[in-house]
Amino acid sequence: MPETLELLNSYRCFEGWQKQYRHPSATLHCNMTFSVYLPPQTNDGEKVPVVYWLSGLTCTDENFSTKAGAQRIAAELGLALVMPDTSPRGEGVPDADDQAYDLGLGAGFYLNATQAPWNRHYQMYDYITKELSALIEQTFPVTHQRAISGHSMGGHGALMIALRNPDQYASATAFSPIVNPTQCPWGENAFTHYLGNDKASWKIWDTTELITAGAEKLPVLIDQGSEDSFLEQQLLTENLISVCKTKQYSAEIRYQKGYDHSYYFIASFIEEHLRFHAHYFNA
Amino acid sequence: MPETLELLNSYRCFEGWQKQYRHPSATLHCNMTFSVYLPPQTNDGEKVPVVYWLSGLTCTDENFSTKAGAQRIAAELGLALVMPDTSPRGEGVPDADDQAYDLGLGAGFYLNATQAPWNRHYQMYDYITKELSALIEQTFPVTHQRAISGHSMGGHGALMIALRNPDQYASATAFSPIVNPTQCPWGENAFTHYLGNDKASWKIWDTTELITAGAEKLPVLIDQGSEDSFLEQQLLTENLISVCKTKQYSAEIRYQKGYDHSYYFIASFIEEHLRFHAHYFNA
Repeated sequence: MPETLELLNSYRCFEGWQKQYRHPSATLHCNMTFSVYLPPQTNDGEKVPVVYWLSGLTCTDENFSTKAGAQRIAAELGLALVMPDTSPRGEGVPDADDQAYDLGLGAGFYLNATQAPWNRHYQMYDYITKELSALIEQTFPVTHQRAISGHSMGGHGALMIALRNPDQYASATAFSPIVNPTQCPWGENAFTHYLGNDKASWKIWDTTELITAGAEKLPVLIDQGSEDSFLEQQLLTENLISVCKTKQYSAEIRYQKGYDHSYYFIASFIEEHLRFHAHYFNA
Repeated sequence: MPETLELLNSYRCFEGWQKQYRHPSATLHCNMTFSVYLPPQTNDGEKVPVVYWLSGLTCTDENFSTKAGAQRIAAELGLALVMPDTSPRGEGVPDADDQAYDLGLGAGFYLNATQAPWNRHYQMYDYITKELSALIEQTFPVTHQRAISGHSMGGHGALMIALRNPDQYASATAFSPIVNPTQCPWGENAFTHYLGNDKASWKIWDTTELITAGAEKLPVLIDQGSEDSFLEQQLLTENLISVCKTKQYSAEIRYQKGYDHSYYFIASFIEEHLRFHAHYFNA
């Protein structure tokens, strides 16, 4: 274990271990906290695949860890779970002037910022796809098999990251993802600040645009609550459904009747998402 | 539904409904918030049994609702879950002078206080066993079958309440319960304030004392983490094991190796507790 990796918490959970760590991130130029669930199969050193979970606006590594009930299924299936934070943190990391919840701290959008003052710290794409995954694979009893999942802003992150790196992620799933951030208020605001006004530069961070541009196919499952209050204005699920049809991209996109944007929705369907990932790890 | 019952939140969850309500409590002389999970069997009006969950120190109705992952099993088994708050709340409700976490707000200990200034509001025993259960059974599609469970201070509450009302609760289970509060610092402090210095009056609120005094048998399951930092000083599990042996009281008391006092422990075993309750509802 690298000397710079600090164990903050450790909990026995479904015969495995839920752990929380802090480490200095060279990519983000700050200390970062993440959580990991190691299933019981790893207790004797067996190596297991990893599912990364990217959380939504305002979240940390703890929301999914405490609320989704995912460890039970991860323990059964023999999957490690890795829960990163949603932005750089700490002294010197810029935040939105008005501390808005949709920009700055807690709102990294899983991209690499190009604009000052964001570009020094807000490099979440490189952090997730390179630094963190390398650290995980060097440190824990895991294979190099990866899948990725997330919620809302993290659903955007999971889909976008997998579409851009289909050789590195076996599958991607999402709950209530922001599927077309270049066309919704949350995304337009964040992308303008992080990436500047040249909208052509935004497209590589947008799931709908990536599929429009002919992204390589990989297994994709999306669940979207029909009563999600952000559906019409921010999530724009229909835009993705439409482009998937046009491009004959076979993502499985399901509306779940009566469900909203909360963790009660995630808890209700996380088992199906983890079984989906396990299926493609074993395929 | 009583006009005074106010719906605060409603979430679709495992095809049932997780709801949060506020109501004026005549017993506690304040407004009280509680949560309820109604499993999918109730969607068409079918009546189901109720498991009450009593939370521990500092908690509200939300800790178990968001962290335990219990709704999945309740949905499968057809059980309603009711999560009350852990004390009276609001303006005029006294708190500990130093806002200590183990007295006053968030620390009602599920008893009826006899001492000023506590005795006007801190009547959690009557609230749980009479007012709330009557409200639940008048309002929701539930039967009169009840079971009770809880954690830490709420484990004490669940066991004590069931032992004193074996005709009203089909079974009781607990995680990390304070089984002998008259003999531990948390209990001694709270009971002195709520009940006064006459320790003879404390015994009816103490699980170990109730069994010593010959409490009627009912199905009891207790899980206790072996690495729980409160075990030796506050929970005193061995005292209960000892008296159960002496009195031939057949409670099932299990040490779970490596587990601590957290909700990760509860999440790991809540399925077994709900199956235990379901078994005795159906017996």
